[in-house]
Amino acid sequence: MENNENTAVTRENLAPLFAKSELIPAIIQDIENNDVLMLGYMNEESLGLTLDTGRTWFYSRSRKKLWNKGETSGHFQDVRELWYDCDADTLLIRVFQHGPACHTGSRSCFFNRLA
Amino acid sequence: MENNENTAVTRENLAPLFAKSELIPAIIQDIENNDVLMLGYMNEESLGLTLDTGRTWFYSRSRKKLWNKGETSGHFQDVRELWYDCDADTLLIRVFQHGPACHTGSRSCFFNRLA
Repeated sequence: MENNENTAVTRENLAPLFAKSELIPAIIQDIENNDVLMLGYMNEESLGLTLDTGRTWFYSRSRKKLWNKGETSGHFQDVRELWYDCDADTLLIRVFQHGPACHTGSRSCFFNRLA
Repeated sequence: MENNENTAVTRENLAPLFAKSELIPAIIQDIENNDVLMLGYMNEESLGLTLDTGRTWFYSRSRKKLWNKGETSGHFQDVRELWYDCDADTLLIRVFQHGPACHTGSRSCFFNRLA
């Protein structure tokens, strides 16, 4: 990993997060019990909307458009903390999760165990 | 997200995880306190090595080669649980982390707070 921890990322300057890729992964973690709920992808616009609305917005790679998590299901994610990693290419968003995070009805998307 | 939860993924058949992309994100979570430590990328070969050795192997996008986390630092990650998500394109690996996970010396790579 590169040592980019001095990159100044602010609401007014989100661009450093997207320097390597237009889409970056956002890990969504339940602030109540620290469970990892899901992973989505964000572009600069969806991250801006997330910061401005206090709820998560992602970019769908298959549908090629922005989506607000919960817009159809009501299972919104209220952003409590937003962190980025040492090389500024991954987000960790700690949320209050309304209802299940997964479209299957599971609380978390990670319910399949491989090992 | 697509509804692929019936995809049969086993050690002998890891291919469904890499159907959409040769590289998939692997979220690394500390099994002791549920902190998210880092995110790395795995290809099929690195996931196989991870399963076979019980320690994490990633694919470095910048160096374009496999790396065993801890091979130079000694900060290995012992795999305790390995999960994949509802649409089988993301891994969640719960580990016992030896020393700091981050190359900066921080326990977690997520020490920069944006909001």
